[in-house]
Amino acid sequence: MAEDKWTGCVKSLKGVILDMCGVLYDSGEGGGVPIDGSVEAVKRLKASDLQLRFCTNETQATREKFVAKLRRMGFDISVNEVFSPAPAAVAILKERGLRPHLLVHDDVIPEFEGVDKTNPNCVVIGDAAENFSYQNLNDAFRLLIGLEKPVLFSLGRGRYYKETDGLKLDVGVFMKALEYACDIEAEVVGKPAPMFFQSVLTDIGIQPHEALMIGDDLVNDVGGAQQCGMKGLQVRTGKYRPSDERHPTVSADGYVKNLAAAVDAILKHRGQ
Amino acid sequence: MAEDKWTGCVKSLKGVILDMCGVLYDSGEGGGVPIDGSVEAVKRLKASDLQLRFCTNETQATREKFVAKLRRMGFDISVNEVFSPAPAAVAILKERGLRPHLLVHDDVIPEFEGVDKTNPNCVVIGDAAENFSYQNLNDAFRLLIGLEKPVLFSLGRGRYYKETDGLKLDVGVFMKALEYACDIEAEVVGKPAPMFFQSVLTDIGIQPHEALMIGDDLVNDVGGAQQCGMKGLQVRTGKYRPSDERHPTVSADGYVKNLAAAVDAILKHRGQ
Repeated sequence: MAEDKWTGCVKSLKGVILDMCGVLYDSGEGGGVPIDGSVEAVKRLKASDLQLRFCTNETQATREKFVAKLRRMGFDISVNEVFSPAPAAVAILKERGLRPHLLVHDDVIPEFEGVDKTNPNCVVIGDAAENFSYQNLNDAFRLLIGLEKPVLFSLGRGRYYKETDGLKLDVGVFMKALEYACDIEAEVVGKPAPMFFQSVLTDIGIQPHEALMIGDDLVNDVGGAQQCGMKGLQVRTGKYRPSDERHPTVSADGYVKNLAAAVDAILKHRGQ
Repeated sequence: MAEDKWTGCVKSLKGVILDMCGVLYDSGEGGGVPIDGSVEAVKRLKASDLQLRFCTNETQATREKFVAKLRRMGFDISVNEVFSPAPAAVAILKERGLRPHLLVHDDVIPEFEGVDKTNPNCVVIGDAAENFSYQNLNDAFRLLIGLEKPVLFSLGRGRYYKETDGLKLDVGVFMKALEYACDIEAEVVGKPAPMFFQSVLTDIGIQPHEALMIGDDLVNDVGGAQQCGMKGLQVRTGKYRPSDERHPTVSADGYVKNLAAAVDAILKHRGQ
């Protein structure tokens, strides 16, 4: 049933955009493990006539290190195919002449190398994990509350993600914390911000209705893509929970067992 | 001008309720320091014909230790005059047969001594300060998200408070974080919950319109008291910020320099 619904759009597709964590692999100690069939599924998409890009809210590493990790897992991915929030944030900061105080993971700091960080006039938070200490949150808060017009950028707004040893709180939770503390609204860079999806479409050179997003996060992957005019498919891997299929406001165009099943159906319906 | 507005109610008052941190003292290293004139102001209120109670969202210590600290600062206060969230939470937990996982300050744990904490089926958060680590927040989150019906109690919902070395994030910020992570709404125990203010009025044996609340927190002290039918006065000490006087939804019945000035005006208008 679910398959009938979304496969109607498959023939007119020109591109597929894949979320990474929870779709390609489950993260965790030692970098994580590929999800069954995903390495092969990426290979098959690349061999097809579809354009392929990767779109992640990953901010625990530079794109270079992140892609290197995925290549070690066996994925055929290169850096210029991957869209992540940190480079997008750097572009915004430079454009607006903002000097960030960073509350991010140590390993993503090199992405901000060329950015002036003296006398900060805004705060950027990413998935800082253990760096989300009381002390660090307090430092970010004090800086914000001391600004005449506090500006907070959040690299994504996810609630949690799944590592091999269980669920972990994501950046969105700490965004909400600082929003409440300062009575402000953060600017989200990354999914589900429409500008972020649009930059991927622009790179491919296709229209939203010609693209399909596949992710494990109903709100940020699927809902975000749909808001942009794309179709959105949810995989039942990663952070997927059965209750997602009864979500009050977001309904995926289809639900599939995993990426391999999605690619099977796509290629079958395109006669490849 | 501001004085004219609120002093109209002074003659019919039977009781005064004081917030503590930011009104009596500024907290900080070594316990904190009394705010100028507050020790004397409490003494004068006690010598008057008004009933006096203290109402705090303090959850960094047991009531006993907290009161002992204030007595060392010179305040004439006894434990049974002080209302704080932890004993109120214990009463609720016992009444509803709930077994808490505690994410609180180490020093408040003794308040929960008589409560069954095995196999927890709810989470209680207080002003845990340094205990709000990523690890501890993640533990609380995992417990909540694993419950069929997650129950989160928050001992207050303050945004921040002032210590001698600056502003510090309060429990409400982490309440918002966990609310967002789990898509739930916390139950607040303490100010501004109406039940909490009502328990103080019941103890004094007076009606809301016979009571005046004095606090430095516009929303939780003043707004909460007003919602209960009391008058609410904001002191320009503690966490007070000039922008409070232009708050979109809460407007104090009066603003005063500090507690000493409030007590001066109260006693003057009562002819004492």
